[in-house]
Amino acid sequence: MEGIDNLKYADMQPKAVRALIRKGEIDWNTSGMCAGYAQANLVVLPKKYAYDFLLFAQRNPKSCPVLEVGDTGSRALRHIAKDADIAKDLPKYRIYEKGILTGEYTDVSGFWRDDLVVFLIGCSFSFESALLDADVPVRHIEEGKNVPMYTTDIDCVPAGVFSGKMVVSMRPIPRGKVVRSVTVTASMPRVHGSPIHIGDPSAIGIRDINKPEFGDAVTINEGETTVFWCCGVTPQSVMMNSKPDFVITHAPGHMFITDIKNNDLKD
Amino acid sequence: MEGIDNLKYADMQPKAVRALIRKGEIDWNTSGMCAGYAQANLVVLPKKYAYDFLLFAQRNPKSCPVLEVGDTGSRALRHIAKDADIAKDLPKYRIYEKGILTGEYTDVSGFWRDDLVVFLIGCSFSFESALLDADVPVRHIEEGKNVPMYTTDIDCVPAGVFSGKMVVSMRPIPRGKVVRSVTVTASMPRVHGSPIHIGDPSAIGIRDINKPEFGDAVTINEGETTVFWCCGVTPQSVMMNSKPDFVITHAPGHMFITDIKNNDLKD
Repeated sequence: MEGIDNLKYADMQPKAVRALIRKGEIDWNTSGMCAGYAQANLVVLPKKYAYDFLLFAQRNPKSCPVLEVGDTGSRALRHIAKDADIAKDLPKYRIYEKGILTGEYTDVSGFWRDDLVVFLIGCSFSFESALLDADVPVRHIEEGKNVPMYTTDIDCVPAGVFSGKMVVSMRPIPRGKVVRSVTVTASMPRVHGSPIHIGDPSAIGIRDINKPEFGDAVTINEGETTVFWCCGVTPQSVMMNSKPDFVITHAPGHMFITDIKNNDLKD
Repeated sequence: MEGIDNLKYADMQPKAVRALIRKGEIDWNTSGMCAGYAQANLVVLPKKYAYDFLLFAQRNPKSCPVLEVGDTGSRALRHIAKDADIAKDLPKYRIYEKGILTGEYTDVSGFWRDDLVVFLIGCSFSFESALLDADVPVRHIEEGKNVPMYTTDIDCVPAGVFSGKMVVSMRPIPRGKVVRSVTVTASMPRVHGSPIHIGDPSAIGIRDINKPEFGDAVTINEGETTVFWCCGVTPQSVMMNSKPDFVITHAPGHMFITDIKNNDLKD
């Protein structure tokens, strides 16, 4: 049902959809809205954690490709969206305190503080549309599911208080198109870029490919290879592991819709 | 003469050359040493400036592509060099206080403090060897000069206390090879990546192409186009503009030689 609703918003401009979200008229996932425009993962942290998190992102660029960092205390953005209010323009937020999810909200302006710093992180929605344009199938879209995501045994490079295991997403790719799936996504390093692993799931600590920790299992056909990309859930997993006092994130699938096109992420 | 001396070090391993530098046996520029290995620009700042500078780098990735950030107070590195002592392993350092160059040193261990943070930034030496491998001529190397560098009228994106104009390097490229110069360097975003401008110098505020602010003027032949890349001198220019209390940098051309190959910067 959400997918059908969202078709109505595919051809709208990001600013117009953000306005509907801000008014509370959209409170569901943003999948498929504003076709061609990049959507972003959100992490908001108190300034005392901002250096460690920015350093974590620098040390783990495939997991945490930073699209923009706000000025301390600011809910506005300079580059990826005009006239945005980051505390109101996502359809659903989560607040974690000391690693525990303490609530979901459609507006976090009441929680805003002068010491909060906004981080927006690239999202695989951008490279999925590039894969489809290149005739590489994306199974979870075909099956109307969420992408399957797995916690690996790969340690992120720690930075200050932040550490944790890398989370990856998986797409089964027909063997003849695996190379193309690499080249297409490699051209978009700001949205996770090339795969982190191709083939045997157990090589990166995944025990059962049919039991993802996040999202949904998808069909893997004979003749297809499992291909794994770094995933924007990694920072949320790291927050749960590292337990900062206070953090705001988007709710999974409820992304920030930017004014920049996916194609602009190819430089 | 330096160039001739440096040929002796072209086939040595980085660790061995760093050991000679640490002992004080090499105190000149590192151009051509350890062929195939990446060299890096150095910026060392007190922790109180580290977030602003890391944010500046994030907002200006073509000027300041960060290869590694050290842990606060540490002179060691985790990724781009093993057993390095960042306070001793560069042949020449500069110290700036409140934007003023107060000294040049071959060892800065006596100035080290527990609050200093090391930033290593990609260097165009890496993409120049890729250009030569692709049969794109590099004029200042042919002429035995330093690359010509210019301050543009392009503002870097400011971050906290740091702001300033972008500095670019220029290489004259035969018209038939301009496209190749773009594709070769675009594949190396961690060492400045693709050009920032192709053609008319005045379009980016350069008044006289024969009078670079840094480095040397080079010959521009009939049939060649001036091609401009972001330059690792930008952070030093920003330090002089923004005047932090204390900063250590490399002396121009006296780079840190890493253990990673230029080819490893292509992911």
